[in-house]
Amino acid sequence: MRTVFHEQLDTLNENVADLCERTADMMRLATEALLYADLEASERVIDRRDDVDRLCAALEGDMFTLLARQAPVASDLRVVLSGMRNVADLQRMGALAAHVARITRRRHPEIAVPAEVCGYFAEMGRIAVQLALDTKSVVREGNPDIAARLNVDDEAMDKLHQRLFAVVMNPEWPHGTTAAVDVTLLSRYYERFADHAVEIAHKVIYRSTGARRD
Amino acid sequence: MRTVFHEQLDTLNENVADLCERTADMMRLATEALLYADLEASERVIDRRDDVDRLCAALEGDMFTLLARQAPVASDLRVVLSGMRNVADLQRMGALAAHVARITRRRHPEIAVPAEVCGYFAEMGRIAVQLALDTKSVVREGNPDIAARLNVDDEAMDKLHQRLFAVVMNPEWPHGTTAAVDVTLLSRYYERFADHAVEIAHKVIYRSTGARRD
Repeated sequence: MRTVFHEQLDTLNENVADLCERTADMMRLATEALLYADLEASERVIDRRDDVDRLCAALEGDMFTLLARQAPVASDLRVVLSGMRNVADLQRMGALAAHVARITRRRHPEIAVPAEVCGYFAEMGRIAVQLALDTKSVVREGNPDIAARLNVDDEAMDKLHQRLFAVVMNPEWPHGTTAAVDVTLLSRYYERFADHAVEIAHKVIYRSTGARRD
Repeated sequence: MRTVFHEQLDTLNENVADLCERTADMMRLATEALLYADLEASERVIDRRDDVDRLCAALEGDMFTLLARQAPVASDLRVVLSGMRNVADLQRMGALAAHVARITRRRHPEIAVPAEVCGYFAEMGRIAVQLALDTKSVVREGNPDIAARLNVDDEAMDKLHQRLFAVVMNPEWPHGTTAAVDVTLLSRYYERFADHAVEIAHKVIYRSTGARRD
């Protein structure tokens, strides 16, 4: 039998899943804006960060109320607390997508990244969005089968981040310091975004299977 | 009358304050290691990150137990939950100090940052350490009078971060791409470290005075 508590928990969980999708959309748009120097799209990403902040604050408030009124213990308590952590991760993901958009805006009408490395960012963007959407599925359906794909994508992201670092650090890098700095920061934003998504997914998977992250 | 719950809360709070001091020490050592290309000191900082991770995990477990056993409500619940957030911030602070140390290690025996900008990092290090120690005082003594100094230091850190960005982005920057990238990442690590410390302090101050952060 589902209690009122568990119904409320389902609603909160659904909101967390929605936020995963929202940050995935933000990162998709931020990446398009980056690759096409699209000022209007980057402004939209920056605006959406405020929405994410508001939604996260509201969700945290709901979780607080749930704890105060129902005083859950054991696994129920764990679910609410890890939900609170997830909200903090999602808020950072929104911030990181906005950071990408801000670099696009700063360099407009130029494209912030040299053509030579656009492929890296297209791929990092694709993986970041995929990770956030996979995390959404994990949150919504508690599907631990996605764990393997999450790990593959997470590693792929780390490798891209490292390779891009090597490209920028190459003494032959011909695009100057500004581009090097932009590329470095952007690469870090994507990598951190992925880390937060994976962090959420692994917490949910751990909770449902007891399997520790390797 | 102090209840058992409040005594336990005091103990947890004391542990949070200790962690503030620990991360302050890590950042002090990381900054010295950076400015003198001290490999041994940077290794020590990297090792200490594991200690911080362990302490944070233990502290989170204690907070969980407290919630499960005592089911606090209202302000007591708020204190425990914000304590959990503080632990997450402290864990990131430890990670960021270790990130600084890793750049030092990577460039050893060279100093990672050009002499021209060492002054910036000496100052950023000083402010980062001061912020973490002020945060410790706020956590331990709930002293809202420190709020003004925290804001001044936080703004000073932001200004240094921005100025350093301008220095690196100057077309006349003579130190090449590698140094530019290192300086950019380091600057961001210090700025994020400060953000996390200020975040903790402001949560504690808000809790004790109800005053919102401006």
